[in-house]
Amino acid sequence: MHLDTIVALATPPGVGAIGVIRVSGPKTIELVNEVFKGKDLTSVKSHTIHLGTIRDGETIVDEVLISLFKGPNSYTKEDVIEISCHGSQFIIQQLIKLLLRKGARLAKAGEFTQRAFINGRFDLAQAEAVADLIASENESMHSAAMNQMRGGFSQEIKNLREELVHFASMIELELDFAEEDVEFASREDLKKLINNLKALIQRLTESFTLGNAIKNGIPTVIAGKPNAGKSTLLNALLNEEKAIVSDIPGTTRDVIEDVINVDGIAFRFTDTAGIRTTEDKVEAIGVERTMSKMKAASVVLYLIDMKEDQPEDVDKEIAFIKDLGVPYLLIGNKLDQAKPAVQKQLEDNNALLISASQKQNLENLKEALKELVSLDDFKSGNTIVTNLRHYESLMQTNEALDRVITGIDQEITNDFLAMDIRNSLHHLGEITGEITTEDLLDNIFSKFCIGK
Amino acid sequence: MHLDTIVALATPPGVGAIGVIRVSGPKTIELVNEVFKGKDLTSVKSHTIHLGTIRDGETIVDEVLISLFKGPNSYTKEDVIEISCHGSQFIIQQLIKLLLRKGARLAKAGEFTQRAFINGRFDLAQAEAVADLIASENESMHSAAMNQMRGGFSQEIKNLREELVHFASMIELELDFAEEDVEFASREDLKKLINNLKALIQRLTESFTLGNAIKNGIPTVIAGKPNAGKSTLLNALLNEEKAIVSDIPGTTRDVIEDVINVDGIAFRFTDTAGIRTTEDKVEAIGVERTMSKMKAASVVLYLIDMKEDQPEDVDKEIAFIKDLGVPYLLIGNKLDQAKPAVQKQLEDNNALLISASQKQNLENLKEALKELVSLDDFKSGNTIVTNLRHYESLMQTNEALDRVITGIDQEITNDFLAMDIRNSLHHLGEITGEITTEDLLDNIFSKFCIGK
Repeated sequence: MHLDTIVALATPPGVGAIGVIRVSGPKTIELVNEVFKGKDLTSVKSHTIHLGTIRDGETIVDEVLISLFKGPNSYTKEDVIEISCHGSQFIIQQLIKLLLRKGARLAKAGEFTQRAFINGRFDLAQAEAVADLIASENESMHSAAMNQMRGGFSQEIKNLREELVHFASMIELELDFAEEDVEFASREDLKKLINNLKALIQRLTESFTLGNAIKNGIPTVIAGKPNAGKSTLLNALLNEEKAIVSDIPGTTRDVIEDVINVDGIAFRFTDTAGIRTTEDKVEAIGVERTMSKMKAASVVLYLIDMKEDQPEDVDKEIAFIKDLGVPYLLIGNKLDQAKPAVQKQLEDNNALLISASQKQNLENLKEALKELVSLDDFKSGNTIVTNLRHYESLMQTNEALDRVITGIDQEITNDFLAMDIRNSLHHLGEITGEITTEDLLDNIFSKFCIGK
Repeated sequence: MHLDTIVALATPPGVGAIGVIRVSGPKTIELVNEVFKGKDLTSVKSHTIHLGTIRDGETIVDEVLISLFKGPNSYTKEDVIEISCHGSQFIIQQLIKLLLRKGARLAKAGEFTQRAFINGRFDLAQAEAVADLIASENESMHSAAMNQMRGGFSQEIKNLREELVHFASMIELELDFAEEDVEFASREDLKKLINNLKALIQRLTESFTLGNAIKNGIPTVIAGKPNAGKSTLLNALLNEEKAIVSDIPGTTRDVIEDVINVDGIAFRFTDTAGIRTTEDKVEAIGVERTMSKMKAASVVLYLIDMKEDQPEDVDKEIAFIKDLGVPYLLIGNKLDQAKPAVQKQLEDNNALLISASQKQNLENLKEALKELVSLDDFKSGNTIVTNLRHYESLMQTNEALDRVITGIDQEITNDFLAMDIRNSLHHLGEITGEITTEDLLDNIFSKFCIGK
């Protein structure tokens, strides 16, 4: 139960055509009605819009549109009003100050969504997805967040929990009949279930690698000898991307120079110092740094200079990149000036032939890049874990389940078994918010925008 | 008649809790309905809000709230939909792209307001006030823009026009009866009217000085001998101002260091080099620059150092500032360490006594500052001209009226007289938009935000 009424600007700060101020809480309608001149807001229907003025005494602060939502049919499930005003910082400030004076309180970051969670509009994983959705910058981030917000992930967690709860209650029932030595829950069935659960958890935790890549960009390294065309390739990919970003006026924003969206997937490119072949092996200048970058990458694009390189160099380079143990794309660059022998050699090695400077075959390169990072999970609509907190809870669930299995094998007493099962339930519950602490909630919602 | 449907982001760019996309035009409802899954928007009432999803084929782009306004009961008087979506740049871009693909066109800057003007929602001066309102940064800018937007200025212009139109038609009637030598319009009455009009126009054009100051800040200079405490005073005023600006989180913005809002009026402060008294007169270091700054100011705050200055210096300084011919405030600083004789001397000259470092009596100083810039017009709700375009049109009207009076005195023929009256009507009509050209409109509306 929230007894206070909160207010905040819900649109980004800055000058714009309109700004929206959001008010939520039991006194919302009464409070706004007091300063609104237009229809009597206490007698209008939910989901209606009303034109009028907001007045501070005799002074007209602004002409506004009032959108009214009656709880529980609102975002927070409380009475909510959104005031759409002229997008002047001064007016917004005056309106908020006026509402504060009338008894509202400034909302904390994420407080509207926190109320929505507490009032049962959605669970914690869904609430977190709202923040992810707002922060989403490309199709894959957007798609993962949207799936999570709409309850895809929560449903999987719920299914896991339900099966475990069933077994936990069986075991606890046995405790009640401890003297009679009955076994309501077959230990074999329990082990089978737990192994199924562990397989599911494994799939989810494995998806976190992809989820994390989706959120932060897939770490991609362009490597190759000096002058193989690494920067030219990066620029060619970046320029095209920039053109896409800026084709709608007014939406251009600071582009992080080294992140490239390929069909909605972010690749985070890292530069490397050029690698040099010496007489008998591939060596690198600043070899250690480059090597560690390449090894940390999810993908290496290895460029071979088809104009300058000699066939014997190319053999060494191919051997080097194959040895590295990282997913890679072998790329022959300078296709427009390639030595026929080298080109043939690369074709035999299934390399992708491009000309970065001529922007030739870049589309094929992008296709290959996408195929390399297996996005089957993403494309199939499978649930992807993108949140570190969820990942950690899943890992803790998994550990607790391991203890259950060990416990069964070692025939520990039922009370210990029940405790381990409860423990895994606890960690699962943390994800969707059945189990929360105030600190946890504060920590989660403080990362939201003000006004959400 | 606008046959195309326009779309734009109406909220400021950047990440926020929500973004609002505005659509206006004949196909608004049909077009949005095609991508909206929820209620059938073609069958809902005006001024209602509907929750649902926007879909691009099978992909959910976002969960949104649709606010629907049926023309003519909308901002543009056309059908308007506002889509309230999650405030992610990616989502906003996807939604706008989707609507463009479905047949909408990206709105030009100010195009929604331009349509509102063309469809007769308000006149040109009122439309311009919308932009001023959005740009308003303090109470006086806000108040002038609000008055203009709500038609205060337009009404005055309309009254002027009506009286002139009446006389113009009388004179033109006389033209029809030219052979009969009748006089429908008394030349004496016409002269009286025109002199009344000229007085009104004079009041309006004179208000432009204030209007311009309101828009750009009242030019204020702090002067005084070196070490009189000029910077300390400026900082003391600025610090307090900054604290006021930042008491609502999230609204802090770049403060122009030398503009101080005093009770809603912006004062634009300029620094001056310290003025030094020599043996027999007040002299300045860099005297010319300081003098010209002081003379260009609307207000000079002249600081006297009550701790260090000798009574004979003070006499010279007071004489100097009185001679300057600019509104000024005589201020005795360092009240906490003042020489009694000097303090008495300043009190006798009605000086304001403060201590800038102790922040003593700064409120009195602000009060005095406000009183000095005569804001009677502002406070009384009188119309203030804030727009250079309006000022110029008024000046041109005035010149045309002068020609009418000269014409009457020189007994020129009615057709010339009528032409001069029509000419003054033309210039008045430019203000409210009865007379417009495409260039003029483009010029005005291109200064608006996108989405307004």
